[in-house]
Amino acid sequence: MISPTPITLAVDCMGGDHGPRVTLAACRRFLSTHPDARLLLVGRAEALAGFADPRVEVVAATEVVEMDDPLEVALRKKKDSSMRVAIEQVRDGKAAAAVSAGNTGALMAIARYVLKTMDGIDRPAIAGQMPNFKGGGTTMLDLGANVDCTPEHLLQFAVMGSALVSVLQNKQNPTVGLLNIGEEAIKGNEIIKKSGELLRSAASSGDLNFHGNVEGNDIFKGTVDIVVCDGFVGNVALKASEGLATMIGGFLKTEFSRNIFTKIAALLAYPVLSAFKNRVDHRRYNGAALLGLRGLVFKSHGSADEIAFETALNRAYDAGRNQLLDRVRERIAHAAPLLMGAQAERSEAVTSL
Amino acid sequence: MISPTPITLAVDCMGGDHGPRVTLAACRRFLSTHPDARLLLVGRAEALAGFADPRVEVVAATEVVEMDDPLEVALRKKKDSSMRVAIEQVRDGKAAAAVSAGNTGALMAIARYVLKTMDGIDRPAIAGQMPNFKGGGTTMLDLGANVDCTPEHLLQFAVMGSALVSVLQNKQNPTVGLLNIGEEAIKGNEIIKKSGELLRSAASSGDLNFHGNVEGNDIFKGTVDIVVCDGFVGNVALKASEGLATMIGGFLKTEFSRNIFTKIAALLAYPVLSAFKNRVDHRRYNGAALLGLRGLVFKSHGSADEIAFETALNRAYDAGRNQLLDRVRERIAHAAPLLMGAQAERSEAVTSL
Repeated sequence: MISPTPITLAVDCMGGDHGPRVTLAACRRFLSTHPDARLLLVGRAEALAGFADPRVEVVAATEVVEMDDPLEVALRKKKDSSMRVAIEQVRDGKAAAAVSAGNTGALMAIARYVLKTMDGIDRPAIAGQMPNFKGGGTTMLDLGANVDCTPEHLLQFAVMGSALVSVLQNKQNPTVGLLNIGEEAIKGNEIIKKSGELLRSAASSGDLNFHGNVEGNDIFKGTVDIVVCDGFVGNVALKASEGLATMIGGFLKTEFSRNIFTKIAALLAYPVLSAFKNRVDHRRYNGAALLGLRGLVFKSHGSADEIAFETALNRAYDAGRNQLLDRVRERIAHAAPLLMGAQAERSEAVTSL
Repeated sequence: MISPTPITLAVDCMGGDHGPRVTLAACRRFLSTHPDARLLLVGRAEALAGFADPRVEVVAATEVVEMDDPLEVALRKKKDSSMRVAIEQVRDGKAAAAVSAGNTGALMAIARYVLKTMDGIDRPAIAGQMPNFKGGGTTMLDLGANVDCTPEHLLQFAVMGSALVSVLQNKQNPTVGLLNIGEEAIKGNEIIKKSGELLRSAASSGDLNFHGNVEGNDIFKGTVDIVVCDGFVGNVALKASEGLATMIGGFLKTEFSRNIFTKIAALLAYPVLSAFKNRVDHRRYNGAALLGLRGLVFKSHGSADEIAFETALNRAYDAGRNQLLDRVRERIAHAAPLLMGAQAERSEAVTSL
């Protein structure tokens, strides 16, 4: 299951809010903890000059996808962008995975264009981690690539998410929850109800460990390993959570810096506050996987600092080393009869008689 | 704009996780701060006996809707439930508003059945408040009554939400945001795009103060006064936020009670921590409005304590006193041409020539 060759990552060094200042610092940290890893640093030659390491190679790219570039510009005009060239390294077999902190929409569009979608997958999805009360991370997908999803898409997400968690968290049979609204309200729309049926079928045929419906609060309770939802709902939940965490952090800071007495209290409570901060540190959960492509791509938060970007590199490395792509492919192949729908299921039942 | 008569609220005293123990304590607190208010305490006579106050009347109801009762049971079988009898007081003009901490789905179903939907409204919605960084509350609807919404429904929500905020927060022209996903991803599905167009039309005809699209984090930033979304998305965002807040609170508690030193730190930081806690205290935001009915109904969180339930009573009182129902009716009537769609808009344009 472990890749026999050293893992090489292609890093879009120009992406994100901070560019090479952060990405290069993160690469240095990453190299020091991964003695067998290699990096392809992709970006403008002048920005990357001076990064001397025998395990590093600079791959020049003359353009940069800006955070506010329209999709069309990123995809059609900037054909020599660091983002695209990094992904091309994966396509050409020179890197096991690409990592970028650039514009999510552009990254997904370019990755789909360059790498193509995996057999059996209609829509690639973005899978990220949220912290949970159990101290682990809850993997959630889709976080914004697909605004309208069919039950079949949600099943594909569930299967791909299971492969991701089995590889990155070493859980062979991770649990899957379908994001829905409370028992006390009308329970979901038609798509969600049909998705539930499909996920239950997948569970009974051994393709998934389906827990059942979960609600928004279950993400943070850690009720299941994987929460599946469409990209609209996932993106809203993700951004709302980021917004709430920022607000709470802001309130804590305001209250502790209100006057000299509260500042002294902050000093005295410092060890406790840092232990707390460490627990909810979003940097520990950075690095979303773009799943369903014929190559591995990881997306770092645009505002990532070097520690956060290093986490994304670590995740990409672990995914490459544990051959995530093959694991996804196997699980999708196994679930193919279900994914091809009721008709395929029926014909398979006949064949297996 | 202020109701000329004393305000009477009908209180479902049996609802919620704690029943009369909490609801009656909250009623006492409410009465002490509202010398002109009257209450109809609805519930089992034996549970309410002993609450002696000249401004209070007990209205007996023999049944209770349990939190896990199926909708059918709540609506068709328990015809003498405290929830239903409380709502009937509103229908019969004996109370300005009903307040319940019971099962949300049952409350909405019974309220729709007993009170009926207001002219010009297709779907009643649940509007609640979330805390925001500006220190105020962001009103969000729908929080779970409607899982599939058309652009017209979302416009109705925006109009009703504007009436609610103008009355309860005394903002004549509150801003409305349409919940959408980030610029960097594909911007919303067809329904959201059409909703945006409809809300812009409403803004240009003076029916709304439409800010534009907002993202999940804007709820907590306080970018707009009102965030409009379908009930599926709203419910997920609400529950995810509750889950995250619970997790963060749990982590803080764990870290501060880890050992004798952290416990001393907690004591020293106590004033700061309570100021912080007060800022994010969900009890200050309790009391969601069921909008779009021919009567006022407020829903308290099921787990509300007496302070939280008192907040819900206060909100219901303010809504009754400021004649929220008339305000919603006026705004809906004003927006009627838009709500009746493009055809009505065209014919109105002709008429007004």
